Amino acid sequence: MIILYMMQSTSPNIRKITMMLNEAGLPYAVHKFEKNADGKLPNEFLAINPNGTVPAILDKDNGAVLFESCAILYYLAEKSGQLLPAEIKNRGEVMKWLVFEAANMGATMGELYYYLLQATDELADAHLQRYKNKINQFCVIMERQLEGEAYLCGEYSIADIALYPWYGVLEDMADVSLINYPHLKKWADTISQRQAAIASA
Amino acid sequence: MIILYMMQSTSPNIRKITMMLNEAGLPYAVHKFEKNADGKLPNEFLAINPNGTVPAILDKDNGAVLFESCAILYYLAEKSGQLLPAEIKNRGEVMKWLVFEAANMGATMGELYYYLLQATDELADAHLQRYKNKINQFCVIMERQLEGEAYLCGEYSIADIALYPWYGVLEDMADVSLINYPHLKKWADTISQRQAAIASA
Repeated sequence: MIILYMMQSTSPNIRKITMMLNEAGLPYAVHKFEKNADGKLPNEFLAINPNGTVPAILDKDNGAVLFESCAILYYLAEKSGQLLPAEIKNRGEVMKWLVFEAANMGATMGELYYYLLQATDELADAHLQRYKNKINQFCVIMERQLEGEAYLCGEYSIADIALYPWYGVLEDMADVSLINYPHLKKWADTISQRQAAIASA
Repeated sequence: MIILYMMQSTSPNIRKITMMLNEAGLPYAVHKFEKNADGKLPNEFLAINPNGTVPAILDKDNGAVLFESCAILYYLAEKSGQLLPAEIKNRGEVMKWLVFEAANMGATMGELYYYLLQATDELADAHLQRYKNKINQFCVIMERQLEGEAYLCGEYSIADIALYPWYGVLEDMADVSLINYPHLKKWADTISQRQAAIASA
């Protein structure tokens, strides 16, 4: 049994994990928590993730505690034997796009959200534009990777699950003109019809 | 034989890979390239990594092409059977700290370098301070993880190799007062004495 730690609201990072848990058919329970009255995270959660980010998981089967959504996806793939190929070259390909998400799309979306929702200085707009440009460039890269392919790395994998949940916010948050990315759209449409994606929407 | 793609100058991201190649005893050759006269990356390299970042590798044994330093570390660990435990809970622990590096320390260092070296607007300083604060917080988290431990995840692993090369720039680039992090210092001192670290310095 996996315990998924999250706060009240969902997010693309949370959705990666619920999609994967549903896809792999792993039993799980959601543990929602709130910030303390002083705005700080509860110590119980900081003991799970000292970096304070959600999602995090506890695997009650063996006591494993994980944070960072891409590390969780990897762990659940290993645990279930699904969505991560065994052969080393194919496995490397999936890990490449998984870390591409963690270090690029995910990290940049984090900055974009900060400048969009929290930054107050008068140059926030200029910084916002820089992050929007980066995200558009990531879309160009994914578009090329998906040309003539159903998924990012041949078979459906945790790399697709890591990147798919951002698709729904690209237009509104990052001003991406999705019409320019037909392969990306086709890929997202295909994934959106999977039972696990529908169950996690 | 591994081909390591890099530009003229080295960096913590490059050093992760040379440390790992030396540690695992994998034969490799370095392929250095320069930007074109127009400041753009050569098309030959963009065919290797459409995202344009170094390091990247080509494994001539099987044709695998990888980018993103943490994905490369993972691949080389699988290829060599070294520095990544086999047991799933321990493996998850290493992947957690590996992705912590990719999505946090590494990504934030990238932003810090941008605001330090390239941003020109008058508020760059304010943004710089935000990134320095984040990096200090990552040091607090690592300090706690290393309390009473030689390495981040029990045995020496690719998680240590991913995070160690940043140690040398924490003070100069991010104003981290290393004196406040004795466990981090002890950990870095221990790693710095490894043959593979000396050979990659």
